Amino acid sequence: MIGSERMVRTLLKNDVSVCFANPGTSEMHFVSALDRLPEMRCVLGLFEGVVTGAADGYYRMADRPAATLLHLGPGLGNGLANLHNAKRARSGIVNIIGQHARDHIANDAPLTADIEGIARPVSQWVRTCASPATAVDDTAAAVRAASGPRPQVASLILPADVAWQECPAEAVAAAPHRPLPGPASDVVDRIAALMTAGGYAPGSVALLLGGRAMREPATRLAGQIAARTGCRLLAETKNARSARGRGRVNIPQVPYPFDAAVETLKDIRLLILVDAVRPVAFFAYPGKPLFLAHPDCRIETLASVDEDVARALGALNEAVGGRGDAVAYLGAEQAAEPPADGPASAEGIAKVLAAMLPENAIVVDEAITHGRQLQRMCASAPPHDWLEITGGSIGYGLPCATGAAVACPDRKVVAIIGDGSAMYTLQALWTMAREALDVTVVICANRKYQILRGELAAMGGPPPAENAQRMLTLDRPDLDWVSLARGHGVPGVRVDNLTDFARALGNGLSDRGPSLIEVVLP
Amino acid sequence: MIGSERMVRTLLKNDVSVCFANPGTSEMHFVSALDRLPEMRCVLGLFEGVVTGAADGYYRMADRPAATLLHLGPGLGNGLANLHNAKRARSGIVNIIGQHARDHIANDAPLTADIEGIARPVSQWVRTCASPATAVDDTAAAVRAASGPRPQVASLILPADVAWQECPAEAVAAAPHRPLPGPASDVVDRIAALMTAGGYAPGSVALLLGGRAMREPATRLAGQIAARTGCRLLAETKNARSARGRGRVNIPQVPYPFDAAVETLKDIRLLILVDAVRPVAFFAYPGKPLFLAHPDCRIETLASVDEDVARALGALNEAVGGRGDAVAYLGAEQAAEPPADGPASAEGIAKVLAAMLPENAIVVDEAITHGRQLQRMCASAPPHDWLEITGGSIGYGLPCATGAAVACPDRKVVAIIGDGSAMYTLQALWTMAREALDVTVVICANRKYQILRGELAAMGGPPPAENAQRMLTLDRPDLDWVSLARGHGVPGVRVDNLTDFARALGNGLSDRGPSLIEVVLP
Repeated sequence: MIGSERMVRTLLKNDVSVCFANPGTSEMHFVSALDRLPEMRCVLGLFEGVVTGAADGYYRMADRPAATLLHLGPGLGNGLANLHNAKRARSGIVNIIGQHARDHIANDAPLTADIEGIARPVSQWVRTCASPATAVDDTAAAVRAASGPRPQVASLILPADVAWQECPAEAVAAAPHRPLPGPASDVVDRIAALMTAGGYAPGSVALLLGGRAMREPATRLAGQIAARTGCRLLAETKNARSARGRGRVNIPQVPYPFDAAVETLKDIRLLILVDAVRPVAFFAYPGKPLFLAHPDCRIETLASVDEDVARALGALNEAVGGRGDAVAYLGAEQAAEPPADGPASAEGIAKVLAAMLPENAIVVDEAITHGRQLQRMCASAPPHDWLEITGGSIGYGLPCATGAAVACPDRKVVAIIGDGSAMYTLQALWTMAREALDVTVVICANRKYQILRGELAAMGGPPPAENAQRMLTLDRPDLDWVSLARGHGVPGVRVDNLTDFARALGNGLSDRGPSLIEVVLP
Repeated sequence: MIGSERMVRTLLKNDVSVCFANPGTSEMHFVSALDRLPEMRCVLGLFEGVVTGAADGYYRMADRPAATLLHLGPGLGNGLANLHNAKRARSGIVNIIGQHARDHIANDAPLTADIEGIARPVSQWVRTCASPATAVDDTAAAVRAASGPRPQVASLILPADVAWQECPAEAVAAAPHRPLPGPASDVVDRIAALMTAGGYAPGSVALLLGGRAMREPATRLAGQIAARTGCRLLAETKNARSARGRGRVNIPQVPYPFDAAVETLKDIRLLILVDAVRPVAFFAYPGKPLFLAHPDCRIETLASVDEDVARALGALNEAVGGRGDAVAYLGAEQAAEPPADGPASAEGIAKVLAAMLPENAIVVDEAITHGRQLQRMCASAPPHDWLEITGGSIGYGLPCATGAAVACPDRKVVAIIGDGSAMYTLQALWTMAREALDVTVVICANRKYQILRGELAAMGGPPPAENAQRMLTLDRPDLDWVSLARGHGVPGVRVDNLTDFARALGNGLSDRGPSLIEVVLP
């Protein structure tokens, strides 16, 4: 049996059963191995950013890695931005990246590139398969790196001759991970004492949650601590996956805009990090600080990324005496009324979505400027998961929705994406159509990079002249998302008012399969 | 004056007057500087692969670099594949890549990545602007690296604070390059002697031309040498830009498929490289050689990439006694008849194009399996330039056509692209529409990655089962290129026979501005 078949068998043995793929010639033996093992589900993306973003979305919802199959350095390059986002989401991914045969690399054929060099900035784990003898162990090591409580982007580079040569080793199971430790008891005691000793004024203590702390049961424990101590709860600005909605603890985020973030944090004097980092400015601005908390704010870490956040919050809750019947930040008990008709607006879209979101939905949020009210408004919707752009590289949304829908075929995915963001990876629409994925795509079409227009305006110069207009608007011509969707095999509709939006969203939510709504915004 | 404005002034002073851009927040001061200098033409791409591919196409036709403006590591990553192709085309590009402010890099904000690490595999020149004091000199050095007879992909990383701080230095001109040397006379004499001494059988001597040798006057000199000595002329498999058509020397290429390439070269016993490399297999295959020439073939270098190829060919022509009135490999004196009607086919498309291609057209060829006859058939068309995918990373064609059209507004660009290839960077269609670029796009829609199906079949296994079908076909659903074009603001039409194709091509060629023809192929 050839190396590539042994590798696919090793993936399957370790529950890696989906391969998002965009292969080329150097991967043909791997393709042929996949073809012999139909229990691996192969999902084609017509661009590699779809492939890697889908693997990210899959991990966020399945909590286990998918494989990707990429064609040499340039194919990996096309997937790089969404691997960056995946790495920041702490999603585990097993990238299988084709390479020339080992004795052909030095010959500098046209597709030759430094694949390890391209992989390293977006992968915590990089290895080139040295020989057929190591192919199975290398694969198991890649799966191990991408799995467990501290998953990584693992990039395994596969020379073509390793893929096609005979490999004697049987598929192996990856070594298991040890669970993460809880926090040291003196840390918990110290933080509990700081929170309860009365040294801080009301409203000046907050827990900042991120990463795994945004899942249940961690959010619920945080809600109990807040109810008991009166502390505030805050979430990091962007989170890979947050448990939200009615009956759950809905933790407000530190806002994205710099001034709003500083305003949110300005009264906090004790900030306790729970799988979160010290709040840092997304970008630097002339004359403004680089960190967001007040200079006098004391920052303590309850649980780092290397500790079990639920155990840490459980221990803190016990130390402060929190109870299950007293929980703060719970979502409203019933859905908001849908809004009256009116022209489409950010607030209107949020209200309609909050009123109509079905139970157990997965919301993929890349609405950028039009999305800032969405999450808060949806606290009254039935329980749902909320996925966001963790690495800041736009173009994650449609692929992430694709992967989330592959991971959760029984859940409705709602992807709400700015037109600028959606254009980077619109090819994901075709994969949604081919796989009949149950995704309702809402395109917020304001026909500009509004976030950048805001940044330019904040610099205080004259209004944009021709060159800035040309770089910050998506008009002349307007994109026609209904045609773009149709071209990819996805039905679409264009709306510009809230009544039509609500009707279109209702249709999208009640039908199965992909559909797209272009909401034209002023 | 701030650093970014000094940098833009330095670009302009050095005749870099087009900036293909997809900026983000960290580039806003650079955007504002561009806005104050309208003599810089800013061209927005909605995806960075469009931006970098356009800069490649621009260089190929303008012979001077454009700038790109890219957003941090992930934005550069999105442009990586077409930078790979540009590097292999030896196109000069000045990438301006935004970076966090210098004191913010270590704070690991979400978009932080190892930008130099991402840039290095696709750039021969990489530098991070150290301070406002060096910004002008760094820019001039980047332009110099991207210019001259050995142009490079130059990646200049610009920290936001360098862009926004005051910079005292005036814009400077880049230091001039020395022209490339001609070959040593003993090399020319030795090769001339080998070619003319009768030691090689007829048909066993060939010049292999690549790079700058595919331009005039180099091709004409090669034609004279061939007429005089009886040697064969061959071109490298893929070339950045070839002068072709009626009255010109049309040099056949070493075919892409491995077996056909070996067959083409099998009788050659003396192969003389002219800005070309020893023919190397695109990919390795089990049990097959890695180089394409016969093992007994002697390989000599007339001119390397570091020498003046036209001077070298002139000297060799003189040494062998070639004359201007005897030129081999000339294109036919009149255009072929257009074919009779019939279903669309690779051969039929080639015949129609050969019959209709206008004088001075620029053909961007990424038709892959359907393009193998195109170039040869078009030898009878009026003089034109032919651009190909040099780095093997598909998705170069639509962006390259975009940049070529920006460089040559008075020439018709015909982009003939496989559907699989076109999907990687279809966003280029929007830039064509916005800039009203005179590009006629022909999509060869066979709805599969035919080249990979051929590779899989050549492996000799069973016919593709479900997984291979899923990864190698673009059907279920079919892409609808007329809708995709309309969505980007480009008019389109679908044809499936040669009469309709000829009519649609005639319309595209006679109208100005972008249009798209989807040719549905069996």
